[in-house]
Amino acid sequence: MRFVAVDWGTSRIRALLVENGRVLARSESDEGVSRLKPGQHEAIFARHCGAWLAAEPDLPVVLVGMAGSREGWAPAPYAECPAGPDRIAAALTRIDLGAGREAAIVPGLLCLRNGQADVMRGEETHLVGAEVPDGLVCLPGTHCKWALMRNGEVVSFATFLTGELYALLREHSMVGRPATEPADPAGFAEGLAASSLRGGGGGGLLHELFAARAATLTGRLGPERLGPYLSGLLTGEEIAGAFRLFGRPDRVAIVADPPRAELYREALAAEGIAAETRGQEDTLLAGLAVILARSEG
Amino acid sequence: MRFVAVDWGTSRIRALLVENGRVLARSESDEGVSRLKPGQHEAIFARHCGAWLAAEPDLPVVLVGMAGSREGWAPAPYAECPAGPDRIAAALTRIDLGAGREAAIVPGLLCLRNGQADVMRGEETHLVGAEVPDGLVCLPGTHCKWALMRNGEVVSFATFLTGELYALLREHSMVGRPATEPADPAGFAEGLAASSLRGGGGGGLLHELFAARAATLTGRLGPERLGPYLSGLLTGEEIAGAFRLFGRPDRVAIVADPPRAELYREALAAEGIAAETRGQEDTLLAGLAVILARSEG
Repeated sequence: MRFVAVDWGTSRIRALLVENGRVLARSESDEGVSRLKPGQHEAIFARHCGAWLAAEPDLPVVLVGMAGSREGWAPAPYAECPAGPDRIAAALTRIDLGAGREAAIVPGLLCLRNGQADVMRGEETHLVGAEVPDGLVCLPGTHCKWALMRNGEVVSFATFLTGELYALLREHSMVGRPATEPADPAGFAEGLAASSLRGGGGGGLLHELFAARAATLTGRLGPERLGPYLSGLLTGEEIAGAFRLFGRPDRVAIVADPPRAELYREALAAEGIAAETRGQEDTLLAGLAVILARSEG
Repeated sequence: MRFVAVDWGTSRIRALLVENGRVLARSESDEGVSRLKPGQHEAIFARHCGAWLAAEPDLPVVLVGMAGSREGWAPAPYAECPAGPDRIAAALTRIDLGAGREAAIVPGLLCLRNGQADVMRGEETHLVGAEVPDGLVCLPGTHCKWALMRNGEVVSFATFLTGELYALLREHSMVGRPATEPADPAGFAEGLAASSLRGGGGGGLLHELFAARAATLTGRLGPERLGPYLSGLLTGEEIAGAFRLFGRPDRVAIVADPPRAELYREALAAEGIAAETRGQEDTLLAGLAVILARSEG
């Protein structure tokens, strides 16, 4: 199976020429959808993929991620949970590339739980590619996703602001700005211990964040441990929240590359929970291959 | 009782000529300690207070807040909890103003609880002035403080990053930036309902913050309600954390000016908890008068 995959995120675009799960060629830039105005997407797509398309007039093209968002190329309505590969494939949005050619945009997923909505765009493809028929899958990132799988479908999922909040705290807050590099990774376990996952954190995240500031001011927490400490605290709060929503599992599948995957593995191991890790490009390519195959079936 | 009070914060300085709890004159600027370099403090103090001091050679001078911090005029070591007015007065740091004159810097408080440190600078004076012998006192702000009082002493306290995190989210995050003004205050109760104080928020704050984003994206939460929603969510999480640490009270004393005091009163009323409110300048002046009187006793 041979196709062009475009992973168009908020801050980057990554175009891949794929054959049987292998990347034959790639083209990337920082032209993520957050930097683009309406009408710019087609030319950027053509610059990254034009040569591949010209050489192979029948090559399928699939776009994933923020390409289908409000700031993207064309709006691709969310598919609604529970959703597996068939439902996602049936909800592909087609855009006309001219000369009788189309590209397919993978829909994001919408999940309604207790009257609250949650959304993803891109992670649904990694979830299909992770091939976890039943259980909990964790997708760390700026907006971390935890998904509950049953019979190969995404039954429910929840997003956590972990990565974005960490960046905010490090760049803009009194709490995180004193952190120094190179960091001492031992701070991660200390922050984890202060989180509600590990029985700390009676006062909740808002208090524990200031406690990190107080520990810095009083010399209890060195600035080289502060960054990993905040990461451990936030990661622990995220995992505790996911377990409250979806139950405490025996094992978790993590879709992430090192070193992030290792941090989640460490946090779960502290609770005696096994973790298996899959790389992000592997799950992306596998997921797109399944979705494209179902759309042709 | 007549004295000069200087409330020197992170972002502002406010000098007051006080007599029997009334402000006779005031002088303010944005020369908070975060903008100053070592050596600049004395001249700024003189510009604000010089005329008052020249006119009355025996007028006592007291500084409160960040004047005694690392970035302040002179380091004033924390007094340690439990601490009441006597202990605070005994820990005043004296600085030489020349010509045989001194100023006193009120120490901040340090609290150790379960091996964790917490700190305050300035709020100890408001707590003395609030005159709540026993019970819970809430001091909203950038770094909100909750203090447990017993027999007129601060037994323990905890700080919450509520105000700073709200500002970070509004100014820098994908979650808060879409919020529009004028805001619809009805969003506050909706955010409060999503917090763990009101039984929402099973996924925790990191999830509820993204849920606000998802609700905005899917049109469930209008941008005019988003700011108050985030404020309600954070306030509810803060109050829930304070109750976990200090127990759930029948009533709370709030030291804040409107409209912030009213938001806390609304959040507590939703839980059937009574609140009494004291203005910030009243508690500052009352607290300084008590501390000065004890230091002379």
